[in-house]
Amino acid sequence: MNDQNPKTIFPIGEQASGEYFTGDVKASYLLTDDSLFQCSIFNVTFEKGARTNWHTHPSGQILLVLDGEGLCQIKGEPVRIMKAGEIILFPPNAEHWHGASPQSRMTHIAINPNTEKGLVEWMQRVTDEEYHNIKVE
Amino acid sequence: MNDQNPKTIFPIGEQASGEYFTGDVKASYLLTDDSLFQCSIFNVTFEKGARTNWHTHPSGQILLVLDGEGLCQIKGEPVRIMKAGEIILFPPNAEHWHGASPQSRMTHIAINPNTEKGLVEWMQRVTDEEYHNIKVE
Repeated sequence: MNDQNPKTIFPIGEQASGEYFTGDVKASYLLTDDSLFQCSIFNVTFEKGARTNWHTHPSGQILLVLDGEGLCQIKGEPVRIMKAGEIILFPPNAEHWHGASPQSRMTHIAINPNTEKGLVEWMQRVTDEEYHNIKVE
Repeated sequence: MNDQNPKTIFPIGEQASGEYFTGDVKASYLLTDDSLFQCSIFNVTFEKGARTNWHTHPSGQILLVLDGEGLCQIKGEPVRIMKAGEIILFPPNAEHWHGASPQSRMTHIAINPNTEKGLVEWMQRVTDEEYHNIKVE
């Protein structure tokens, strides 16, 4: 589904911390939280199987999927598939995770609005059992 | 530089109003201003030579250039070239315009943060003289 090398529009960036992510994740800040826009924007590339830990954002988060296919889940809801061209919304304080699918790399832009309320609260890892718990209809 | 048909990740949308734009511009709302995120996001495609009118945003605007090459200008500053992979910032209330270059289609994501202060104030057209006034160094 993806090429050998990521198809990138924006800078790929640096390896993300293994403390908050499982697998191979690279992230690049496009806009660092600032007083002018109260907004953070980053470009994140997840290799197959890679994902965030569970986490929350005080003001929520908006994902714009640029390439590939991924998975995401809000606590208490089913795991859902997300594809290039989709926009995904995580409401303020909704516990959630996002990442690549097992079969595909995934790149998304992540927009955090209203960062004067804070950026992120990191939580526990997404286990393999949680990650693979997709309901096939 | 571009294919015959726009290379799109996100929906192209509808023809934008000739009242606020010059030339062939299509825009699609990805996130309509809402009370949850106080943020609007749209995908805009400008054909060669097309551009916005001069305008301001009460909370500023962030452009993520997805494809092609465009032009933009903040009042009192030189016209600048913007290319796929660049992020362009217009501060709150800065009078500005943006569009395609004369030689290339251009697609960008436009993010308006803090929309509780308003979205946009439209002004006069960008004349051909203003549009073509690029300083070659």
